[in-house]
Amino acid sequence: MARGDTRRRMLGTAIELIHEGGAGGVTVDAVLGRSHAPRGSVYHHFPGGRDQIVREAAAMAADAMTSVVAGLAELPPVQGLRAFVGVWKEMLSGSDFQAGCPVAAVTVSGTTADPELLELVAATFAEWKSLCAAALRRSGIDDAEADRISTMAVASIEGAIIMCRAARSLEPLDVVGAELEDRVTGALAARRG
Amino acid sequence: MARGDTRRRMLGTAIELIHEGGAGGVTVDAVLGRSHAPRGSVYHHFPGGRDQIVREAAAMAADAMTSVVAGLAELPPVQGLRAFVGVWKEMLSGSDFQAGCPVAAVTVSGTTADPELLELVAATFAEWKSLCAAALRRSGIDDAEADRISTMAVASIEGAIIMCRAARSLEPLDVVGAELEDRVTGALAARRG
Repeated sequence: MARGDTRRRMLGTAIELIHEGGAGGVTVDAVLGRSHAPRGSVYHHFPGGRDQIVREAAAMAADAMTSVVAGLAELPPVQGLRAFVGVWKEMLSGSDFQAGCPVAAVTVSGTTADPELLELVAATFAEWKSLCAAALRRSGIDDAEADRISTMAVASIEGAIIMCRAARSLEPLDVVGAELEDRVTGALAARRG
Repeated sequence: MARGDTRRRMLGTAIELIHEGGAGGVTVDAVLGRSHAPRGSVYHHFPGGRDQIVREAAAMAADAMTSVVAGLAELPPVQGLRAFVGVWKEMLSGSDFQAGCPVAAVTVSGTTADPELLELVAATFAEWKSLCAAALRRSGIDDAEADRISTMAVASIEGAIIMCRAARSLEPLDVVGAELEDRVTGALAARRG
């Protein structure tokens, strides 16, 4: 197998583990066990060991989510919101409610020991909020209102994903999606008024 | 030292670890290291080993939060909401942003391996939502609206706590608190209208 294949497979496994349980779930044994990579490949492909795997996988997982947010932020706000809630419903039901948000998982599973991870999660949440706020501003909502709605959107969707995993039900995301849609629709109507 | 003291200290340590990193952070070594209990006390006080410590500590941490929610749900909704946001701001700043919600942490750090933990987190989120909805209904908000607001409140506060930890800032909770207050105030006004 080509060098790149094993490395990519190990990172893909680490990304899955981060979605499921945060950085704490990424152990060398778990990565090797699920990716079927030989033990020697850890220090061959990742001289920095487990920490390097966690950091690379967390950055890739965060970037992937940011790409989705950036893409959907190009849509009109209500459409983008609906599509984003739809993405999460698919990810939750498609993983039997085992895969949640990788950035929330890294934050909650304890990042303070690694300043690099802390910087990653802080920058990622800030980027999502900023992409969301820019989309709302493009629709004519003023800066302060766009900022508030964006913080509420990121927070409530993150929380709803966790509630969905706990309840093994998509209902919390449906409710939060409907509440956010009302909030955005109200702000758009006020702008026109 | 009396038997009860060591046991309680070990559980207290496990609860702290759950707030910081979920169930995954509760290892025997971490509990012993921080509680300064002798190694033999694990199987002396917890014959079920690490799993027993995690389950007891998670249940105690969840119950403690439920007591807070139940107490504040007795206040008028806006007052209760403000007080609850205040509790979380204290917990975050008082722990240098290391302690988050134990129930979210247990959910996100991977509960699926332990059905007992999964049941605990599902029942706890449901209880919080139910206490919140009952408070809103007592203020005259109808059932469907009270349910929606309650889901939004639990989800957005959970998400805001995570964003606060990532950013090491209380701003997300302030914004979410203000948004929820507007939502509740609007529902109360519509009821009177």
